[in-house]
Parts: sequence; C-alpha cells; structure tokens
Amino acid sequence: MLKVALIGATGAVGQQFVLALNKHPWFELTQIVSSERSAGKKYMDALRDPKSGILRWHSRETIPEYIRDVIISRVEDISPERFDLIFTALESEDAKVIEPQFAKSVPVISTAAAFRYEEDVPILIPGVNDQHAELLNTQRKNRGWQGFIAPLPNCTTTGLAITLKPIMNEFGVEMVFMTSLQALSGAGRSPGVIALDIMDNVIPYIPKEEEKVQIESKKILGDINSKSITPATFKVSCTCTRVPVLDGHTEVVFVGTKRHCEPEDAREEMLKFSKSVAVKKLPTAPKDFIVVHDDPTRPQPRIDREINDGMTTVVGRLRQDTVFSNGLKYVLLSHNEKMGSAKGAVLLAESLKDRKFL
Amino acid sequence: MLKVALIGATGAVGQQFVLALNKHPWFELTQIVSSERSAGKKYMDALRDPKSGILRWHSRETIPEYIRDVIISRVEDISPERFDLIFTALESEDAKVIEPQFAKSVPVISTAAAFRYEEDVPILIPGVNDQHAELLNTQRKNRGWQGFIAPLPNCTTTGLAITLKPIMNEFGVEMVFMTSLQALSGAGRSPGVIALDIMDNVIPYIPKEEEKVQIESKKILGDINSKSITPATFKVSCTCTRVPVLDGHTEVVFVGTKRHCEPEDAREEMLKFSKSVAVKKLPTAPKDFIVVHDDPTRPQPRIDREINDGMTTVVGRLRQDTVFSNGLKYVLLSHNEKMGSAKGAVLLAESLKDRKFL
Amino acid sequence: MLKVALIGATGAVGQQFVLALNKHPWFELTQIVSSERSAGKKYMDALRDPKSGILRWHSRETIPEYIRDVIISRVEDISPERFDLIFTALESEDAKVIEPQFAKSVPVISTAAAFRYEEDVPILIPGVNDQHAELLNTQRKNRGWQGFIAPLPNCTTTGLAITLKPIMNEFGVEMVFMTSLQALSGAGRSPGVIALDIMDNVIPYIPKEEEKVQIESKKILGDINSKSITPATFKVSCTCTRVPVLDGHTEVVFVGTKRHCEPEDAREEMLKFSKSVAVKKLPTAPKDFIVVHDDPTRPQPRIDREINDGMTTVVGRLRQDTVFSNGLKYVLLSHNEKMGSAKGAVLLAESLKDRKFL
Amino acid sequence: MLKVALIGATGAVGQQFVLALNKHPWFELTQIVSSERSAGKKYMDALRDPKSGILRWHSRETIPEYIRDVIISRVEDISPERFDLIFTALESEDAKVIEPQFAKSVPVISTAAAFRYEEDVPILIPGVNDQHAELLNTQRKNRGWQGFIAPLPNCTTTGLAITLKPIMNEFGVEMVFMTSLQALSGAGRSPGVIALDIMDNVIPYIPKEEEKVQIESKKILGDINSKSITPATFKVSCTCTRVPVLDGHTEVVFVGTKRHCEPEDAREEMLKFSKSVAVKKLPTAPKDFIVVHDDPTRPQPRIDREINDGMTTVVGRLRQDTVFSNGLKYVLLSHNEKMGSAKGAVLLAESLKDRKFL
Repeated sequence: MLKVALIGATGAVGQQFVLALNKHPWFELTQIVSSERSAGKKYMDALRDPKSGILRWHSRETIPEYIRDVIISRVEDISPERFDLIFTALESEDAKVIEPQFAKSVPVISTAAAFRYEEDVPILIPGVNDQHAELLNTQRKNRGWQGFIAPLPNCTTTGLAITLKPIMNEFGVEMVFMTSLQALSGAGRSPGVIALDIMDNVIPYIPKEEEKVQIESKKILGDINSKSITPATFKVSCTCTRVPVLDGHTEVVFVGTKRHCEPEDAREEMLKFSKSVAVKKLPTAPKDFIVVHDDPTRPQPRIDREINDGMTTVVGRLRQDTVFSNGLKYVLLSHNEKMGSAKGAVLLAESLKDRKFL
Repeated sequence: MLKVALIGATGAVGQQFVLALNKHPWFELTQIVSSERSAGKKYMDALRDPKSGILRWHSRETIPEYIRDVIISRVEDISPERFDLIFTALESEDAKVIEPQFAKSVPVISTAAAFRYEEDVPILIPGVNDQHAELLNTQRKNRGWQGFIAPLPNCTTTGLAITLKPIMNEFGVEMVFMTSLQALSGAGRSPGVIALDIMDNVIPYIPKEEEKVQIESKKILGDINSKSITPATFKVSCTCTRVPVLDGHTEVVFVGTKRHCEPEDAREEMLKFSKSVAVKKLPTAPKDFIVVHDDPTRPQPRIDREINDGMTTVVGRLRQDTVFSNGLKYVLLSHNEKMGSAKGAVLLAESLKDRKFL
Repeated sequence: MLKVALIGATGAVGQQFVLALNKHPWFELTQIVSSERSAGKKYMDALRDPKSGILRWHSRETIPEYIRDVIISRVEDISPERFDLIFTALESEDAKVIEPQFAKSVPVISTAAAFRYEEDVPILIPGVNDQHAELLNTQRKNRGWQGFIAPLPNCTTTGLAITLKPIMNEFGVEMVFMTSLQALSGAGRSPGVIALDIMDNVIPYIPKEEEKVQIESKKILGDINSKSITPATFKVSCTCTRVPVLDGHTEVVFVGTKRHCEPEDAREEMLKFSKSVAVKKLPTAPKDFIVVHDDPTRPQPRIDREINDGMTTVVGRLRQDTVFSNGLKYVLLSHNEKMGSAKGAVLLAESLKDRKFL
Repeated sequence: MLKVALIGATGAVGQQFVLALNKHPWFELTQIVSSERSAGKKYMDALRDPKSGILRWHSRETIPEYIRDVIISRVEDISPERFDLIFTALESEDAKVIEPQFAKSVPVISTAAAFRYEEDVPILIPGVNDQHAELLNTQRKNRGWQGFIAPLPNCTTTGLAITLKPIMNEFGVEMVFMTSLQALSGAGRSPGVIALDIMDNVIPYIPKEEEKVQIESKKILGDINSKSITPATFKVSCTCTRVPVLDGHTEVVFVGTKRHCEPEDAREEMLKFSKSVAVKKLPTAPKDFIVVHDDPTRPQPRIDREINDGMTTVVGRLRQDTVFSNGLKYVLLSHNEKMGSAKGAVLLAESLKDRKFL
C-alpha cells in the first residue's frame, strides 16, 4: 500500500477524493489537511457550516467511516518523507506556493490550474495522453526535484479532450466550437454558487474557464518530444455557462474535421477507443470509457452522470454538422467531480503507479 | 379600432396574446377560441386544470379583467367577415387546416410553423425584414385570397435573426454556430415540460427545433424579389437544449463574418440598428430593440427577460472569436413568449397596419 | 417462486414495482399490463413520450434487463388462475372496477385508494398493523372471494403512521397536526406536476390528500376485532403541500400525547420499535425501520431519501412541543415511491406470504 | 422631506430599502453605510461579487438611478445630527453595538433582532399594534435618549401576527401551530443559502427562527400598559423550514380559538380588518392589507408574492380545523423582503411620522 496525504480535504473536490480513496486497494489515505480554520477538528466537524448548522457534505454517498473522526492537520504538519504521494485539491494561488514545497521530495497529483501551463508540466488524462507522462522526468531533472507536479485538466476540458481524441486520431480535427452548461458543484462550496443567483436562471460566464479549456485541450491532444509538448493545431472557441444542475457538465460540441467523417464512423471510433483504452484494468477505471447514445434525448445530467460512478464520458446526438464541409456535432456529459476531478486524479495515480512513475 | 379574434386563447402563447391585446389602442379582441373541451366555458374557468385544481395562468401579470368572463367559442362559430384580423396560436397540424379557411377572407397572423416554409409566405420579424411583407400580395394573388397568412418565426429564431441582421448588414455573415438554452414556457403547458423531467437536469434535444432555426434564419435574412425570397447564403448549425428556466431563451452564438469585425464595431452596429429600426413608434415596440451589456455575467434570463416587457433582445459577452479569422461570439437572450411569440405577433400586426396591409 | 402480474406497469409507481421485483427471491413477475395505448408494445417503447421523445423512466437506477423487452398486455389478457398474486398501481376509478374482478380468484395488493375505506378492508403497513391482516379472511368470507384486496395507505400516511406507532404504544396520542411538503413524484408522471407550475413555487393544496391521511392514520393505528377495525381515538388535522423536490415526502408533525413524554424517551421508543419490528427478516425490509437524527438540519429529502433504498422512515428535530402540556414535535421523511408505495407493497406481499395469507 | 441614512445598504434587506425609498414623498436617503470592505466604493461597484463577477442585486426591479453612484460611507462617518431617522439592516451582533450609538440622538428603525426582546422596546407592525408605539416614549425616558430603537419583527412573524390579529379580536386565540416554508432571500446573500444545499431539497431547520416567531407573535399581539407589554396568552409552536423558492414565506397555520369560529366568519373579519386598518392612507401602504383566496391552490409564492408590491398578506385554504373543537386552519403568504422587512420598515416610519414620533 502506498501512503498518501490529501491537502484540501473538506472542499467539494476534497470530499470526492475521500470517497475515491475509501477502501482503495493500492492507496491508503493517512493524513488530511484543510484550511487553518479547520485544523485540529475532526473531519466530520469541519464540514459543518457554523452559521446554518448544515453539514456541507454534498455527495449522495454517506461520509465513509474511515475518515469521520480523522483530525485535520495543518500543511506544515505534513512530513513529505512519510508519503509516497500527495493529492492536492487547492485554489490556484495556494497551489502555487504549497505544491512545489512537496514536489521537491514526493509526487504531487493536483486538481489546480497553477502549474498546468508550464513547459515541463504535462496535463494528464489517463488513457488519453499517457505518453505525456514522460515529461514528468524532464520536470524532475529541470527542477532538481525527487517528486513532480502532475495536474489534471480543468473539469470542463476532460470530456472534450476524451471525445476529440478518437475523432482526431482517425479524421483529424481542424476547428472546435464548444458551449458548456456547467453544474453547480464545479464552483465548489465555499460558498460556490448562491441559490439566489442561479434558481430559474443561467449565468453565461465563468471567470477564466474558456481560456483554460481552449489552451488545455490543445496541450493534452498535442505531441510530445523529449522536452516539451507541441499543442495540437486545431482551433477551439468556447463559451462556458452555469446552469441549475447539481452535478455533471453538459457540453455542446461542433467539430470541423480534416477528412470526411460520417457520424456512424465517429461513433465506431469512439467505441473502439473506449474498448482499447490503456487504463481499463486499473481499479478506478470505468467499464466503459465512452458511452454513445442513440436516444436523441440523452445525455441528460441527472440521468447519466452516475453511470460507472461518474467515470464514463457520455455522448449523444452525434450527427453531421450543417456548416462544416467535413464535420460533426454532438453533446457530451462528463461528471465534473468524478472523472473530471478527484476520482480522475486517483485514476491518474493508478496509471502512474502502473507505469512506475510512483 | 380593428376587430380581432384569437384562436388558441388558453395555451401559453394564447395567454400572452390576451395580455398584449389588453387595452390595445388599435385592436379590440372580441372573440376567442380554444379547444373543443373549453368551448362554452368562461375564459377563467377554462384555464383551470380539472385534476390538480390549479389555474394554468402562467404570467406574473394577473389575468386582465376584460377577458375573465368571455365565453370561449368554437372555431366554427367565428364569422371571418366580422373581423379585420385573426391571430392564431395553434399547433402546426391544426394551423394547417384552420388558417387557410380564414385567410380566404381575412388576414391571419400566426405563431405556428405550418406555412412558414411555403414559397409565397414570408416569415416576418418587425424591423428586421419588413420589405418581405410584399410577398403577402403575391400570396393573395397566387391563392385567390382576400386575406393572407403571415407567420412569425420560431421563438428561437427571433433573437438570432435580430442580432445577426446588423452584423450581416455591415460585415457579412458566412457561418453561424448556435447553442440554445431554452426556457420551459417554450414548450407550452398542455402539459409542456414535466417537472420530473427537467429539475436538476438539461434535455439536450427539442424535436424539429434545430431545423426550424436553420431554415428560418436564412429565409428571414434573405433577399426578396417580386415572387419569392432567396435565402441568405450563410451556413448555420444549431443544437437546441431545454434548461430549468421559466421564461427567456438564452442563445450562445459564434459567427464567422466576411469582413473583419471588431467586437466594439459590432456593438456599435447593433445599437445603431436598435435606434433606427423602423417599428420604433408602434404601440408595442420597445424603447430599445437591442441592448448590449458590458457586464460579462449578462444576459441572465431571470434578470433580463422582462426588460421593456420582454420586447428587447439582450446581448452580452460580445467578443472576438478564437477560431474564425473574422468572427465574433456572443450570448443573447430573447423572451420566447413576448418578442418571440404573441407580443411580437401584435407588433407585426401594428407594423402591417401601419403599412396598409391590414 | 410465486408468479405475479403487475397492472399499471409504466406509471411512476409501476416503475418502482419493476425495480422492487427485479431478482426478487420469492416473486417472479411474468406479465404486465398498462394503458390500452401501450398494449402490444415492449416495456421500453411504452415508456417513451411520443411528443418530446423523452424516455419517461424516472429512477436513477437503470431499467432492469428482465423487463425491457416484455410485451405489455391488456387487462383482459390476464388469466388470474395463472398467478399467485397480482400487484396493481392504478388510478382509483380504474381500481374500483378492475381489482374485484381479480380478487375473486387471487390476492390483489393495491396502491390505490379505491377500497381503503370499506369495512372489511384493512390498510396494511408491514410491521405496524400486521394483526389487521386477519380482516382479509373476513373480507374473503363476506364477499365470497378466494383472493382479497389488500391496499397500502396513501404515501403521505405511511411515514406518519410509522412514527406515531411507537409514541402511541408508550405514551398515547391525543392530537396530531401535520403539514406535508410533498415531492413531485407523488403526483405521478402522466403528466404529474408541470414544471411551469412548481419551479420557484409551492402549491399549498393536493386534492383529497388531507382527508386520506386523516382517515387512514386512525384506521391503521386502530384496534381490530373479529369483524372490523375501530379507528384510533386521536384527532388529526393535516395540510398537504407540493414543493419542488423530486422524491421524498417531508412531514412536519406536532403530537399531543396522553402522558408526559420526553423527546429522549420518544427517541428510545422509536429505536426500540425499529429494532423489534416483525418484518425485519423479510427480503425487502430495511436494516433500520426508523432512523432518528440528532443533527437538527436533518432529515433532508435529497440527502436522506435513499437510505436503505428508501425503506427507512427518517426522523429529526425531535423536541418538546411548546403548546401541548404533553407533547412532541418532529420532522419526518418517507420515500413516497419506495416504502410509501411500490416497494412497501412488495414488503407487504412478503409479510403476507410469511404468514400464509398468500 | 426628512433626511434618512441607511446602515447595511448592500445586503438583501438593504437593497429593498433602496427600492422602497426611491422617490419617496417624505424621506430622502442621503447617506448609506455598508461593510468596511465596501466603504469608499460606489454603490453599484460594491454589489459586484469579486470572485464570480456577478452583480449581487437580487430584485427584478433595476437598481434605481439615484443610488448607483452614491459612495458608501463608514459607520463612523455618519453624523446623527444631520438625520431625522436612521434605518438599519444589520446582523444582530452589529446592531447591538451600533444602534444605541445613534438612538441617543435620533430615531432608529431596525430590522435586526438585537433589541426586540427588551422590556421597553416594542416590536411594531404598522396597522397591527400601533398603540405599542407609546412604549417608545418610555424607552426614551428610561435610557435618556432623544431617539429610540423601533425594531420590526422577524419576517416570519409578520404574516402570522397580521392574520392572527383579526381572529384574536373577534374569536380569541388559544393555540397556534405553524409550519413555515421559507424563501431563500430570507437568508440574505452573503452568502445566504448555497445552491448545492437547497436544490431538489428542503432544509427543516433555520437557527433561532422558531423561538423568535413564538416570542414575537405573543409580544406583538399583547396588551400595553404605561411601562411594558403583557404578551398575549395564547400558546404557539413553530417548525421553520427552508424551501427552494426565491421570495415569499409560506406559512401553514392551525389555530385553536376561544369561541366557535366559522371559516366564513374568519374571512369576514380578516377583510374587515384589512379595510379598516389605520395605516391605509400612508404612501407605502398596500391597497389591501390582507387578501383571502377561495381558490384552494392559492396562495402560491411565485404567483402571489408581488401583489401590491409585496405589502399584502395573502391567505388561502381557510377552513375548519379537524382537531380543535373551535378552530381554523389556513395558509398564508407574506413577502419576506417587502412587508416582512425593508418596505415594512418604511411603512412603519411613515406611520410613526404620521403620529409625530418622528
């Protein structure tokens, strides 16, 4: 068993880490950190909002027994040498300071954006760009670290990159237009989205989100040489919105391809990719990496987000585009807190361990 | 005062007609028709759902006094010679049969799709393609009618066409990708969208909606010659979704233009168009035809849908596109039951009367 | 294995029957009936709404394999002699006609109100009033039936009766005031509650609901003699409302007791009752019949409704009442489609079989 | 024109004060205070959430022109001698410190609970207990103040006290059971209720709310003698819940009366009281103080909360109770931010000015 610590354990993403690491066959979570305010409290007690008295545990699954009474530590209480791996679920500004301190001696897998755009840092989605992990060795060398920082993409990038991958492989991708309808949990819960702002409403803007998706999707689908990644050459344009949905980001995608591509062929490629994906045997990997619906009313976030415990990207409405001479359009659903975040990070850890990076 | 009848008076759109015609300075609503089941009942009584007992009046505005006790007629009770104009708010299959019966002798303004795609039928948005009204004369001649059928566009087309118009005029439009986040009231209320289907959810499909928007926007923005309309030459691709919002369709638009177009210039053109639009002095016309927000969090349906009583198209997030060499992206909000439907139909009637078509 | 048929298989309650009978160790569902319109279709196909194209399957659990392709029969296709038991999930008017036809020869367990108020018909909640099942023998004799009709209570009665039972046993109950905040699924889905009616809203009225709860709770908690049930003598007053919650009825209860009753003692009695309840070993019985929360923010429908797959009544806010000299107040949550309906009916079937009524 | 200052101008209640004082014929708002963080900013700018960029203005009405560019002051910038009246919309702990500082020299009308329960402080609802205002003179004398503190009740008390008043006058009140279904805006917006906590949910607990309603309703409906108020003798028990509704508290009430009371008579008394209420001619008073619906599906918060701009208490489902030998039950709706808070405070100010307390 590898010993792991979790920094940022009480937030939205932290809670999903706690679930994803419950009874994990390879990783044992032995120390957790949260904000200064929570230090010294039991995990359960730290989740309770002092004003409303509400327990801020969001998942339908109950709080696992193993974590309820664990006392929350301060960052400075973590001795990196006692851990094989550190998961972080931090705001970007905090990640910038804290993650390198640990990466000196131990691998860090992060959900924050802080290091995603640095040259020697890959943005990894298990099964999609596993070969980019090589860059972690460059990073170690460059920085003189024993560990490394391996960030996940933004949760909105994940589903887009996963579905573009098989299309790009077979037909080439030239242009992508994407509109997201993002769930509330993507904004976290301190306080995240306020009910008065979103009920009977849509917020057509999420700060910095569109830039992240545009840059990250090209980096993830880019080519690696020994020292860095050359981003994919397609162009991408996004508009990101928030809708009154608890979990699960819906994305409406229009793709211009290099070569002609029948929807039926794209479907085939997606399913072929789903079957052959390298990570399939890892403990946290889903039975299906991608599911494609024929039912035009799917995917729906409330109905489809929990398929394979949120690790599957669900595609629907796959059809010929009417603008591009070669092109497709489709709708995808990706669980922003599972595959798109904490549980995807655990899958990444498994994949890195499997390939001896841990 | 022109005497008008309303066919389809109790549905979602019909209720908005009742509001838009309340104390109207030019039109007097003197007879109303609804389903067979409602005939002979008072308007108020016909609105009540027999099972739940709920009064199915959806608007925040109360039911106007003038209509409460009016007895609902059958279609066959309407003597067209007693009316100067008939408004219809019917399902397409019913419109196909009923509207021509009346159009033989009296103008019909319709919110149904039944005749929109016929060659001698214009799809009119007041202020956008007023010159297409000429086709009504061709229609009269072709069909030997004294009246005509003048349909409004689908409620999702309206805001798109209104915002594309000034861009097309000044910069040319080549391609349009549009994703809609449509409100519940667009599906009507018999029964419309069921709460169990949409709460905490998105439905990524609205039957036939995308095709309508794709065809109608090109016809509306096309050129008219003596006998027919040549559709605009741009290409358009849509994905239409339903979200848990009561009223107001949000549309996310990506536009490729023929000539370079700074967002600031597009903004100017929209405002210039808004100011100069021909219909501005009509009784139902809004103070602003288009409003453009600088605040990136706008438009929001709950906050912005009732500006100028739902007759204004609200634009926000106007910015350079990152895919097109010449292009823009923006978000628009259009009230699907006001400008996009009944109240837009009354504005059309005003505009046609103003130009002696009535 | 007992052979069972299900009449009313596609509605909200019918779907829950399909789930509750999936891989059931004692009952095998071999024929299903739905509306005339659905007869001859596969189960899956009958669930699809013809207009919106939406599959009207409401549960988070997917449609079980065993039922997907089963062809829906007509009522008249059911040969009662081929079944050991018939479950019905019908509207009351239909139940009135159909259920007696079958009860002549085979036991019928029903979720409809049609026969609940007849003198020789018990309203059974497994574990609460099992001794009332004796009345089924009287019913058989009275009516000359080989079978019987055993109706469940209204879904709003269930949680109330379950929580009153241990209080009544120990302290006596004199008066009950109850306000319900009922979930959408309680209204079914054909069409059930329309989204435009309930979003950002409360409907303070559910036709006939209050009368049902008031009568049924007294009958269930009454005493049986050989021929009939003497209702409990407490008085009860209800107001039933509909709130925008998918599943799970919340009920706010004020109880005046005969003897003094500390909240802590009521809690003890509830837990004691929960532990000792007779049905605990049946296949569908929950681990906990009642759970009592100390956390004052519980129960919450979204968080607590699926505990023990919806078979547990969850109690919270148990405290001294400030009006009654002897009294309590509390909040309860009961899953209206699980314990309160189809799955409760299957538990009742198990309980009746266990005691040789089947 | 009286000069007024507003302390707590940017919160939920503060915003409603800004609306209620817009173009007020008697009061001129000339200085506003908000949190330390906002001091020195324009009102508009202070409303914008720094993280999401969202303008935290909640009302459908747009921000009045008169206030947009007003610079926010610090508390210590307020010179009481320059004002005739100060409105405060503060958290209770802040009110405790700040309000007495001003009350030394100038009248303070407060929405906070801080002083409600002190012996020489009345809790005033205009039209309900106007005679309690006499206690303000006692307060002045006791404390040696030139001003006074006049608090409004908790927003949940308001509708209850208003509807109990005419029943008490005519039939006497012995017991009250009340369950509230409270709106989101009652929790304010910094951050108030988080969307992830309340969507598809009910929170069955609002800290301290029930105690407030229980104490305040009896004080408001009590008798005043020269030096203090003797609370009304009825007993009252509440359970307060939060539901996913934007504005408007729904309350389900069961009342035991001293004398027999037909629902029809209670209705008469409510309407008689509504007509004769003393405050009816004041600028902010509604046309109807109470409206009583026959339609059993009313009141509904979304439909009824804005009647008379939120100043009317809407009653429905008035019927005989089934527990009390003499008793009623009904449902009421009261706009928690209008009559129940800021706008009610302005009406109180008008009423106090009218009677020379200002």
